Amino acid sequence: MTSESRTSSLSSHAIDVVVMAAGKGTRMKSRLPKVLHRLAGRPLLAHVLGTAAGLGARRVVVVTGHGADEVEAAIPAWQPGADVRCVRQSPQLGTGHAVQQAVPALAGDGVVLVLSGDVPLIAEDTLRALVAASGGERLALLTIDLPDPTGYGRVLRDAAGGVQAIVEHKDASEAQRQVREIYSGVMAAPARALAGWLARLSNDNAQGEYYLTDVVGMAVAEGLPVVAQKTADALQVAGINSPAQLAALERDWQRRQAERLMDAGVRLADPARFDLRGELECAADVEIDINCIFEGRVRLGEGVRIGAHCVISDARIEDGAVIHPYTHIAGEAAGVVVGAGALVGPYARLRPGAQLGREVHIGNFVEVKNSTLADGAKANHLAYLGDATVGARVNYGAGSITANYDGANKHRTVIGDDVHVGSNCVLIAPVSLGAGGTIGGGSTISKSTEPGGLTVARARQVSFVNWKRPVKGSKK
Amino acid sequence: MTSESRTSSLSSHAIDVVVMAAGKGTRMKSRLPKVLHRLAGRPLLAHVLGTAAGLGARRVVVVTGHGADEVEAAIPAWQPGADVRCVRQSPQLGTGHAVQQAVPALAGDGVVLVLSGDVPLIAEDTLRALVAASGGERLALLTIDLPDPTGYGRVLRDAAGGVQAIVEHKDASEAQRQVREIYSGVMAAPARALAGWLARLSNDNAQGEYYLTDVVGMAVAEGLPVVAQKTADALQVAGINSPAQLAALERDWQRRQAERLMDAGVRLADPARFDLRGELECAADVEIDINCIFEGRVRLGEGVRIGAHCVISDARIEDGAVIHPYTHIAGEAAGVVVGAGALVGPYARLRPGAQLGREVHIGNFVEVKNSTLADGAKANHLAYLGDATVGARVNYGAGSITANYDGANKHRTVIGDDVHVGSNCVLIAPVSLGAGGTIGGGSTISKSTEPGGLTVARARQVSFVNWKRPVKGSKK
Amino acid sequence: MTSESRTSSLSSHAIDVVVMAAGKGTRMKSRLPKVLHRLAGRPLLAHVLGTAAGLGARRVVVVTGHGADEVEAAIPAWQPGADVRCVRQSPQLGTGHAVQQAVPALAGDGVVLVLSGDVPLIAEDTLRALVAASGGERLALLTIDLPDPTGYGRVLRDAAGGVQAIVEHKDASEAQRQVREIYSGVMAAPARALAGWLARLSNDNAQGEYYLTDVVGMAVAEGLPVVAQKTADALQVAGINSPAQLAALERDWQRRQAERLMDAGVRLADPARFDLRGELECAADVEIDINCIFEGRVRLGEGVRIGAHCVISDARIEDGAVIHPYTHIAGEAAGVVVGAGALVGPYARLRPGAQLGREVHIGNFVEVKNSTLADGAKANHLAYLGDATVGARVNYGAGSITANYDGANKHRTVIGDDVHVGSNCVLIAPVSLGAGGTIGGGSTISKSTEPGGLTVARARQVSFVNWKRPVKGSKK
Repeated sequence: MTSESRTSSLSSHAIDVVVMAAGKGTRMKSRLPKVLHRLAGRPLLAHVLGTAAGLGARRVVVVTGHGADEVEAAIPAWQPGADVRCVRQSPQLGTGHAVQQAVPALAGDGVVLVLSGDVPLIAEDTLRALVAASGGERLALLTIDLPDPTGYGRVLRDAAGGVQAIVEHKDASEAQRQVREIYSGVMAAPARALAGWLARLSNDNAQGEYYLTDVVGMAVAEGLPVVAQKTADALQVAGINSPAQLAALERDWQRRQAERLMDAGVRLADPARFDLRGELECAADVEIDINCIFEGRVRLGEGVRIGAHCVISDARIEDGAVIHPYTHIAGEAAGVVVGAGALVGPYARLRPGAQLGREVHIGNFVEVKNSTLADGAKANHLAYLGDATVGARVNYGAGSITANYDGANKHRTVIGDDVHVGSNCVLIAPVSLGAGGTIGGGSTISKSTEPGGLTVARARQVSFVNWKRPVKGSKK
Repeated sequence: MTSESRTSSLSSHAIDVVVMAAGKGTRMKSRLPKVLHRLAGRPLLAHVLGTAAGLGARRVVVVTGHGADEVEAAIPAWQPGADVRCVRQSPQLGTGHAVQQAVPALAGDGVVLVLSGDVPLIAEDTLRALVAASGGERLALLTIDLPDPTGYGRVLRDAAGGVQAIVEHKDASEAQRQVREIYSGVMAAPARALAGWLARLSNDNAQGEYYLTDVVGMAVAEGLPVVAQKTADALQVAGINSPAQLAALERDWQRRQAERLMDAGVRLADPARFDLRGELECAADVEIDINCIFEGRVRLGEGVRIGAHCVISDARIEDGAVIHPYTHIAGEAAGVVVGAGALVGPYARLRPGAQLGREVHIGNFVEVKNSTLADGAKANHLAYLGDATVGARVNYGAGSITANYDGANKHRTVIGDDVHVGSNCVLIAPVSLGAGGTIGGGSTISKSTEPGGLTVARARQVSFVNWKRPVKGSKK
Repeated sequence: MTSESRTSSLSSHAIDVVVMAAGKGTRMKSRLPKVLHRLAGRPLLAHVLGTAAGLGARRVVVVTGHGADEVEAAIPAWQPGADVRCVRQSPQLGTGHAVQQAVPALAGDGVVLVLSGDVPLIAEDTLRALVAASGGERLALLTIDLPDPTGYGRVLRDAAGGVQAIVEHKDASEAQRQVREIYSGVMAAPARALAGWLARLSNDNAQGEYYLTDVVGMAVAEGLPVVAQKTADALQVAGINSPAQLAALERDWQRRQAERLMDAGVRLADPARFDLRGELECAADVEIDINCIFEGRVRLGEGVRIGAHCVISDARIEDGAVIHPYTHIAGEAAGVVVGAGALVGPYARLRPGAQLGREVHIGNFVEVKNSTLADGAKANHLAYLGDATVGARVNYGAGSITANYDGANKHRTVIGDDVHVGSNCVLIAPVSLGAGGTIGGGSTISKSTEPGGLTVARARQVSFVNWKRPVKGSKK
């Protein structure tokens, strides 16, 4: 099926999505509602809602229950402006009952796609194909063959291969339990038909619940065609019920992200020691050493090299920059920019609003926050630059500190082009250092300086030749 | 068998444990005796002795040989007060000979449990079941089926399945070598019978050694029942002979620890990149990022988050505290406490006796040793706090240092509540800063200050406008 | 075959090596020529040339093509003095065409060994055996059975098992594609015969290329014996075509390096988290914790312990030294030496020319560059030592800095034995501190001091009791 045919097929049937997100997740042993646990840095439910948005869903109805307040409060931040409505399921009487709660919030026509908030990696392509298989007229089920189907609802087929019903594991006969094709929990159904079936569900079964899967038998009984779309990708239909499952899916997903990046030319020293919890955009010839973590939105320019053990979030690192090991970059909302050809680290920390120009050097044990460093500026050792504007080619000495906080307010430090700040200086903001000036080592600068010249604030050196060093006594 | 019945069965037969710990471990290629090599941070033999203690063994006899002095010197620290006796095997004439050396040190009655000092992960439950199977009357062997039994003693059974003998690999016929059930090296035997058998061992075999396993044939010949208890858990009976085996068992064990923690609700970003070398107690909703190491005894409160690449030992981290990446916490004997809601790191180092109150912030490149910080105190950048008592809400400036060592003795620094210490200050201990005071940036404080006010020790700032910066010459 | 017979067989036939290195490596998606991509820190082609050198090859001819300038420029640095010649293949008309280009550069006699520049891990032993199998008279092919031979040239044998031909995958019949024995790309051939065959190659085949593999059929037709030497080691014949393959081979190789070191007695906390990109020489009882990287040439003395997350290159660490976590050592050309019993880290950075004596302590957030520290010297906290000569037992205070750069030149700091430098001092080089002297905390020292006594440069401490701390206002 070509992309165009899919699109036309979809456009003829508006999609409404129901996401089941009411489960408690007892095995998570957490106060956090299950669907708010994070995979690749993002809540499980946010993954599902992101996929629904990608499908162009007309409306999304989230069925909440356990932890409903917390879930409902979290959703708006993920997709501002999307038509996402929450309905509550209380008490929780089964999957069919859950979808029943959503019916009043649905538009009533088109195709309803049922997803699970704890099945985060279902792919848009798979869902598009499922909706197309439904075509607004058929009940389309996403199924998969599992080596060990224990616990899942089995797909029962007649001799001709036609789907007849889904039987839940607890209700299945021994023969039925031999079936390895299981229902994934994802279905696409004509909205009107679905509403009718749901109204007729019964809870006369092993668990005393209203099973959504009973609609299959109803469709068959009505003569409505039921199609089972089988996927081979277990990752897409994997649900999360425990921290161990969450960790396993995280690893599978990270492995896929690593493979995708490598296919695009990124060189990873070890794909099993790579973590992406957001978006990573890489130009050509990017190299990433072991154990790096990327979060938020990170862009790496051509030839960028990231050393081992770095943690980088919300940053743009431009062509040819080299980030040495143990560098921690966290741009948050303000972002961080590392200019082309810059050298950063090891043990450098760039905080929100750090903006480094071309060929800037930030060395070991240096922290930069809300500061701009123009091209060629250097702070190579044991330093703090906070709320500073640093000119081109400035050399900022080892151990020097911008005292940007007076105990109540933050103030700016402005350092002109070509200034040399000596070692262990304190620049007491607000203060401005004139271009080309030199600040002697050990100076505390509280008044702005003129361009050029030398400024020192230094006590006279005095020696006491007869002074004796203390001797070892009792400690206090 | 219920727990009570087990206990009563055990209480009727006192258990003495013999631990074989004389082997050289040539393939370890180490000067350290094999049983002192560490798994999960603890010597192999200490694991075994800990298990023996857990069983409530009346007495433990360790048979030492290679490196006996070092082994015997190490033992007392692991279980002060336990009745652990060492006997030496010299020369080393086989496993039977080893246990013979232990006989005089045994009480002479009850059940003797034979363990190996290089099989560290044998579980208490398994041993309890084995002792119960012996019942003080039978010879009980722990066995396991191995896919590749090469090198191990095979369990020979008669047509009815009764154990007849164990034959060592080197003495086994081709047909016997087909047997996949092997003897694990662990047995429980009636003490008096065992002593008798040991006295009659011969060394007429392929290796010219006294085999402990020959007691099986003797028991059968005497009509004493022999039971083989088969385990399915290869980890429990895995022995260590080389660094590769040690590393492999370490990984298996770490994987189990990770699974155990996840089952209890701990969220691990990657179970394959987690190392626990001690005890880790976690409240609900703890999250641990990749590559963290926990050593000694660590407690994590509810909702604690540990960032990537942290190394933490002997510490208590209270509810809601967040530990950022690359934080190194080592409490040793004095311990470290991180208060509720505290923020620590990245690149923070907390050393013995660091005690942080609630909401304390310790930032990048900050070291804290033997110091107490009251609630809300902050040291966010490039600082050293050693032997200090820091009041509530103190702001300790970037680059500031407690000079706690006068070259001979350590002295204390006391900082009152609400003091603001500027950047790059030196506090020359002993010194006390009065509550609410402010210390100007760049000050060296050698005399105690009164509460409130501003204290500075700062040279006058002077500019030399005609000064010229040195020009590039020959380097020295 | 004994080692001696191999040697004599080799000595009777000079070996010339042809390395095919002209490929583009489209799937690498890189501007770097494929053979310059690195495995274990070394370009693929450098691995192959190193192996050729190890074989005692008389001459090596590298066939370049894509990125030829860059490849040819890189080679000389790898093996200064070796007889390595480059010939260009342009256009690129197949593997046979590639070797044709090399013929004029070959000596014309002896054995020609054909290798691939993107098959980096072929072992010397394997090649020696192949050359011996050729014996200067036979065509010897290195082959391997693959589970999935898709894409590779199949080895066709007659009923008696004699090699008849190699057929490329694209030219193979369905029946031929069932063959799982494939040609590895490595062959040894009599030089004169090979030259003759190459001259007669045709490109009448599925790809319209001159296949090197067609020489097999020619040899058979001429009655020259063809021998296929089968290897079981897929790693040796693995070629690199994509970042994913490069990463996979890197991991396999790292695993082997880890196993080799463990067999030699090195204790690795996790063999899957260990990276060696150069040479690592270890004495007895070395322990290496997780996630360490070794680059260049590193030697570790007896009992050395390397903590987690260290990155170490070009360094010699002597007996009993302990390197704590997050230590970054990069010796580059000048090298780094860590003396016996020294303690380094955590978060220590040793740069080129750092030479630490016995029992030296370098603590957290300390950087040492081009400096010598005599026995027992200590710099435990937040310090920079650059271009310094530090005497025995010196205590270098927290936060102290050598101001070694005057904005134009670097100068040396000389600190005599037993000097105590207080906290947060600046030593403005060139400066010399006399033995046994004490420098008061917070001093900026710009003039050399005499031995003994106390030197301070410190402003008077003044308090302003009525001063009021600023109150929170609008930020600037």
